[in-house]
Amino acid sequence: VSETKSLGEFERIATFFAPLAAPEALGLTDDAAVMAPTPGFEIVLTTDTMIGGVHFFPDDPPDLIARKLLRVNLSDLAAMGARPRGYLLASAWTRDTGDAWIARFAEGLAADQKLFGAPLFGGDTAATDGPIALTITAIGEVEAGKALRRSAAQVGDEVWVSGTIGDAVLGLRVRKGEALGIVDASATGLLARHQLPTPRLALGRALVGRARAAIDVSDGLAADLGHICEASGVGAEIMADRVPLSPAARAALGAGKTDVAELVAGGDDYELCFTLPAGATPPDTAAAGIACTKIGRIVAGAGVRLLGTGGREIALRRTGFRHF
Amino acid sequence: VSETKSLGEFERIATFFAPLAAPEALGLTDDAAVMAPTPGFEIVLTTDTMIGGVHFFPDDPPDLIARKLLRVNLSDLAAMGARPRGYLLASAWTRDTGDAWIARFAEGLAADQKLFGAPLFGGDTAATDGPIALTITAIGEVEAGKALRRSAAQVGDEVWVSGTIGDAVLGLRVRKGEALGIVDASATGLLARHQLPTPRLALGRALVGRARAAIDVSDGLAADLGHICEASGVGAEIMADRVPLSPAARAALGAGKTDVAELVAGGDDYELCFTLPAGATPPDTAAAGIACTKIGRIVAGAGVRLLGTGGREIALRRTGFRHF
Repeated sequence: VSETKSLGEFERIATFFAPLAAPEALGLTDDAAVMAPTPGFEIVLTTDTMIGGVHFFPDDPPDLIARKLLRVNLSDLAAMGARPRGYLLASAWTRDTGDAWIARFAEGLAADQKLFGAPLFGGDTAATDGPIALTITAIGEVEAGKALRRSAAQVGDEVWVSGTIGDAVLGLRVRKGEALGIVDASATGLLARHQLPTPRLALGRALVGRARAAIDVSDGLAADLGHICEASGVGAEIMADRVPLSPAARAALGAGKTDVAELVAGGDDYELCFTLPAGATPPDTAAAGIACTKIGRIVAGAGVRLLGTGGREIALRRTGFRHF
Repeated sequence: VSETKSLGEFERIATFFAPLAAPEALGLTDDAAVMAPTPGFEIVLTTDTMIGGVHFFPDDPPDLIARKLLRVNLSDLAAMGARPRGYLLASAWTRDTGDAWIARFAEGLAADQKLFGAPLFGGDTAATDGPIALTITAIGEVEAGKALRRSAAQVGDEVWVSGTIGDAVLGLRVRKGEALGIVDASATGLLARHQLPTPRLALGRALVGRARAAIDVSDGLAADLGHICEASGVGAEIMADRVPLSPAARAALGAGKTDVAELVAGGDDYELCFTLPAGATPPDTAAAGIACTKIGRIVAGAGVRLLGTGGREIALRRTGFRHF
């Protein structure tokens, strides 16, 4: 594909996107996709937009932009306990977006839709005079009546989180060229967490019928647990020393380049935060694909408190992920 | 609502969008919507984006922008024979987009989602430094295996179209301040066709099990019939004097301000173009909500030919609606 050449709209669809299409896409030559849900399942629908200069840097690799866009949508399905079925892509490219950029973008989609079992159902392409604007709508399904909700937390539940927290916000700082006092390999790992999050789909499925409330960590652990609290009419306490940190985040913490308040406020981790009845155990790591850590509990009241050693409260910071 | 005030993201959702939410939206406080399809039906999914400065003028009334965005999506459902169930909205507003603009935008959605029975299922709000970028994903359903397709036209079928053709492209010229040699009331009517198309949902439903191929006229009658031809491996002939025109379009034609080639090339009419077996009659106007006109036939070969008096071929123009 030439770096400068620009195919027409229909040729771009045929060249780059038709190979990604599911049978439900009807060859991308119809007005809409048609999907038969699995009997006994309900449809789960979510949409997320990424804008150049806001959600990604204009010079980020196009394949990583595509993969992150798909993954943040799949993460919402994971938080509902749904399994992916497919996705729609609405893209507005600039007149300078060449075919080579789009080819790499489509390569990223191809890799991830195979990995996660979510092929292309359809979409729309448009032009813009502004930054690139990309929207994916992800379609999944979950056993009828079994979707995980934010509103089901109960006082006495224990709060769990998957993986490690705060890597993505540190990765964003790496992307901006900040020194975190850590070795290059660690910085690269943090950057990867920022650019290429992993939707916890297997964990979400394993939590169906087991977890009370669930959410994915997109706004930041404290903010997202706050969403559970608000929807459930409860409060929560997080034990700071229980928050699971990666070796790289621990190193940055040890170097004095971050603190736990930043890590629990940072967005984009795309781990799952969920509550279980007291004493219940999370799904096996083998089944869920990721380890989970008990970090606190649901209490009466409202809001999230972060507690340090001896129960001393640590002030929470507002997340940076409020768009207005 | 203050003209200058700007609520936060969550407050905007609660104030302007929560009142639009369907039960499937789970109060807009979860990660995704959950929808149970009607037994025996399949899900139909489509997405369309509108960008400020490309698909609408930045100073267009926000309620009309909202309604057109929803309607062009519903038109795709109509073309598949589907009935609407709901929609997702992904919006990227600028930092200058005040609450008053968004309040009017939401008023437009409220009016149309009631009119067409398609409530809000969920969405996403983001910020952009560029033009406003708006994407709706419409969700509908159709009897399993019965979706209308572009690919089912057969040689010998007759080609039909609903309503009148070319009004929207003339309305766009009115919007640009061009004089079309017609009275003001006619110009206002054409502008309304451009700004507020009507998705032919009742007609689409009535065509299920009756039409062979169908499409909605978004790229222009000739181009969209061309899509049917390409998908079906056939050609088509349109009789120029059969193309249904509004009195306003006839007046502009009589004033020498347009020609039939422009009218069949113009996009945004959102009528349905469909084929029926020869001799079959379209649904009653009363049932379909709109009159239909037989304009030509499907022939062997490829491509669309526009035929004038005595079978003389009239050169087709490329549609202006190619985004790249």
